[in-house]
Formats: sequence, C-alpha cells, structure tokens
Amino acid sequence: MTVVALAGGVGAARMLTGLSAAVPDPSSITAVVNTGDDLVLHGLHISPDLDTVTYTLAGAISRSQGWGLEGETWNAMAALDRYGGESWFRLGDKDLATQLYRTQRLRAEGATLSQVTAEIARAWDVGVQLLPMSDDRVATRVTLAAGDGPDEEVSFQHYFVALRHDVAVRSVRFDGVESAKPAPGVLDAVAAADRIVICPSNPIVSIGPVLAVPGMADAVRSRRDDVVAVSPIVKGAALKGPADRLLAELGHEPSVVGVARLYAPYAATLVIDEADAALAAAVEQESVRAVVAPTIMSGPAEAKALGDVVLSV
Amino acid sequence: MTVVALAGGVGAARMLTGLSAAVPDPSSITAVVNTGDDLVLHGLHISPDLDTVTYTLAGAISRSQGWGLEGETWNAMAALDRYGGESWFRLGDKDLATQLYRTQRLRAEGATLSQVTAEIARAWDVGVQLLPMSDDRVATRVTLAAGDGPDEEVSFQHYFVALRHDVAVRSVRFDGVESAKPAPGVLDAVAAADRIVICPSNPIVSIGPVLAVPGMADAVRSRRDDVVAVSPIVKGAALKGPADRLLAELGHEPSVVGVARLYAPYAATLVIDEADAALAAAVEQESVRAVVAPTIMSGPAEAKALGDVVLSV
Repeated sequence: MTVVALAGGVGAARMLTGLSAAVPDPSSITAVVNTGDDLVLHGLHISPDLDTVTYTLAGAISRSQGWGLEGETWNAMAALDRYGGESWFRLGDKDLATQLYRTQRLRAEGATLSQVTAEIARAWDVGVQLLPMSDDRVATRVTLAAGDGPDEEVSFQHYFVALRHDVAVRSVRFDGVESAKPAPGVLDAVAAADRIVICPSNPIVSIGPVLAVPGMADAVRSRRDDVVAVSPIVKGAALKGPADRLLAELGHEPSVVGVARLYAPYAATLVIDEADAALAAAVEQESVRAVVAPTIMSGPAEAKALGDVVLSV
Repeated sequence: MTVVALAGGVGAARMLTGLSAAVPDPSSITAVVNTGDDLVLHGLHISPDLDTVTYTLAGAISRSQGWGLEGETWNAMAALDRYGGESWFRLGDKDLATQLYRTQRLRAEGATLSQVTAEIARAWDVGVQLLPMSDDRVATRVTLAAGDGPDEEVSFQHYFVALRHDVAVRSVRFDGVESAKPAPGVLDAVAAADRIVICPSNPIVSIGPVLAVPGMADAVRSRRDDVVAVSPIVKGAALKGPADRLLAELGHEPSVVGVARLYAPYAATLVIDEADAALAAAVEQESVRAVVAPTIMSGPAEAKALGDVVLSV
C-alpha cells in the first residue's frame, strides 16, 4: 500500500510515525510537507516543518519542546544576545547545523529544496520519503486584526513565534504561491497513492499552503474517495497551536464540523476523536464520512493505532 | 596622538593591543582591517580578520588557537558532520553568533559592513575604532602553482585553511578591488593621523588588499614620513602563517630587506627584530630607516613595548 501524507509540523510528524509503524516499509509513505512557514533569518534558509518531521521520524526530536533536537545546546543563541541579535526564533547549536547545511546546498551549490530535504532525511536514516510541497519560495503571511491602526501583515513565524500566536488574525495569504510548482514527484505520488492522508495539522496555515500550490487542490480532489483527513480539532480545541482560534477568526467553525466543511472537497473521510463522537452525524451532513477513533497520539502505540485506523478505513 | 593601523589578523591584533596600551585613549587608534579574506559559507558573511582583531582586543580570543573564542564549543560543527557539510572552516558555536548577526544586519537590514563592525566592536567593549578596509566586496584569490595541470584559482580561505597554505602559489589577486571604495572614514583617518602603522601582517594577502583599495596606496604614500611598518618576517621566517613562502613564491626576498623593498613606497621606517640587526644597513639601502627592537609579542608587556617603539620613533 502506498501512502501520501499532506503534512505540517508536530501533529503531522506524530501521524507519520504512526503511519510508518503501521506499514511494512516506511518508504511506501511519501510526506508532502508545508514550506509556507519557511523563513530566512541570519541569512539561513530555515524549514521548521520539514525539520520537525525529520527529527521526529528520526527519534531525535526534543520531547519536551515538540520541536528542535533532544540534548540540544544553545550557545550560539546565548552569544547572539551580546549583539542584541534576532534570537526570538530559537535555533539550537545542532539544529543550526541543519540550517547551515541546507543554506550552503541551496545558495552556493544550486541544489533544490527537494534534493537537500532528501539528503537531510537520509542523514537521519528517515525511511519515509520527504518532499517539500514546492521547491519554489512560498511565504505564509498573516494580517493581524489590529485594533484601530492599519492592518499589519507579518510573516508566519513572526505571528507564531515572536507574537506567540497570541493575537487575532484578519487574514492569511501565501505569498508567491501563484507561480509555485509542486516539487518533483508530488503530483505523481498523489496520483498513484493507494491512500492519501491529510495529517492532523492546522488546516489554514499548514495544510492550506500545501493545497494552495497550483495543481495540488485538483490532484487531491480527484482522489477524494481515497483521501482520509484526521481532525486536528478535538472538542473544539487544537491540541497544540492556534488552529482553533485561527479557524474562528477566519469565519470557520472551530470544531470537527468546521474541519469537515473545509475538507469536504478533498476528503471523503474524516477521522474525529472519540470525544467528538456526538458530532459524527453533523460531520456526515457535510458529505464527509465520519470515523470515530482515539486521535490523541500521546505515544508511539497511540500513533500506530491511529495509523492503522487511517490506513484501514 | 592619533594613530591609523593597517591590519590583517593575528599579528595585527597583537600589535593593536600593544598600541592600545601605549596610548592614553584607545579610541585615538583607528584600525583599517583587511576584508579580502572574508568569505560566504553556509550563507553567512564571515570576516575572519575583523573577528580576530575584535576578539583579541576584547581579551576573548582563544590563546591556544590565535583565532576564535576562548571557551568555545563546537556542537554545530560536529552536527554538520552528519550531513557531510562544509566543516573545514571551523566556526565555534559562539563565533557563529557573530556571523549570524553580521549576516542578518547586512542582508536583511541593509547595514554596511562598517556599521556592523562598529556594532560588534561596541558589543565587545573594544575601544579601538575598527573599520573594514571597504564596505564593498573584495575577494582575495590565490592561483596555485600546480604541477602539470592548468592553474587552479581558489579562494584565500580555501588556500589558507582547507589546504593549510601547504601548497605553492603562483599569483594572488583581489577580485572586485577595482570598483571598491575605502570604507567611510578610512581616507580621512589616514590623512589626519599623527602616525600610520603597518602592522606585522602578511604583506601580500593581509596588507596587500588594504593598499589595493583604490585611493589607499596614494593616501598612505602621501604620508610616508609618518608611516612606520613592523616586519612580519624575523630571521627569514614568518612567526605564523605563510608570509615567508608567499614572498619567495611571488619573487620577493623573504627577509626584512624584502619587506623593506615592498614597503619602501609607503613607509619611511621599518621596525625589524633584534635578531635581524645585522640587516639594518641593507634595509636602509632600500631608503627605509631601520629601527631595531624586540618585535616578538609573546605577551601584553612585549606588545606594549613594541607599541611604544612604533609610536616614539
């Protein structure tokens, strides 16, 4: 069975470990990862979602943080404080090496993001095939719903990290997406997969950019019957991050029903948590089959169990 | 007394500590530092000579290495090895912060190298005014005297670090220098200084680029009577680095006499080491006054003593 997973960061990374454990060969899984929250800082090309997925699949992610590397040191960041440098985006010393390598390959050696992503995954012995959604630059931009003043548009990471996503949002756009192409292999993988999984990631800012790459929405829609989405919303709340507030701020219902409505054009099936079992009927009114299962991946066993559900429904 | 010092890396850094100790106010000293060996690696703008001078004047330089920071850690470099990344140019974790800050200021915030250099110096409480020789990119390129094959041109750092300057050199050029301008304040400082010091740095690849910036050679020549050079060659050998071999390979005599010949258009006076006292007459035959003094700066006292000599002759 071949699987394509549309992926954001932490939730997707856990889903991918579960899917990996649920198949005989992880290389039958291709993850198409959001790069809309990539940023250039200190001259470095940083790909937070790709790194979170890679480090998680490698078993090297910091468990306490959910991002970055276990056993990390922070000497560069601490030294940056001497200069009053931009230390709001935390890069551990070992994590920095990933950014140094990616940047050197992209800028000096003419590699594509796809190539570097594969090299980094191989170095970490990750079996899942990792693809960026695009080799072209797409930048998720967030317009804050500031009180009186003019709208303020900031980068996704500024919103997410510097402002700790603790501000209301008026709109989201994906700068550059119109001229972006899916990374090599993405459309073929979507066309050929036995199962397409929309991971429990933020629908707006993690899955949204992936589907916004020209060609992707059509490709996924045409496979709708084989597409299974997993709701990132449980009992009206995001397990992590601002998905619930973002949905509400942008006019969507922050519930599994709202998620069903968003994903209805793409997915025939939505896996919702047992805690939302009472909403199964409402989900199905959106023309999406509801599958009720435990979706909270608190450990490898729970992640594998969810992987089994997603692949067997 | 105002002083301008033309500076490369280690030898210049020590000379500057000596000059600082020899004047009432270090801010009366302006160092014009070689940036021909700057490099872009991992997307970062690295300025090795500026950093060596800054760290040395801050008392933060690694004594054992002569470059980089004391008490440094190497976690990023070690992690880079996982990817087979470019780890030949060693950047400690704290030193990386300097490169991150410089790059962010230059690339994202539109600062000039002069501005960033001043900010970094201020952060380290360096009293000496540090100026890059130019805000424009000048890249020292080295053509290797390869055996049979075609000449191979490499970057200075490739020659100096990756090849450990253990190969013969056919020629040296300063790419981009024709269109470079002296950094703001450089020419004014040279014109106004009571004393101009050519530090004991490599005449070819450290002082050479500084004098090659258009306007600099004329500016220094016009102050010849007030220019004192310190020979980086003692008893026919460089204290550190390849200056002796480079001089010989490029057709110069690797001795204080060869240095006198090179600097004769610029400097009325050359300080040579006591070990070379017998060559004083030969130096003066090059129309350069020879001052014999201990020039080996093994510690702060020796550096200050040499500073006193340079300022008093």
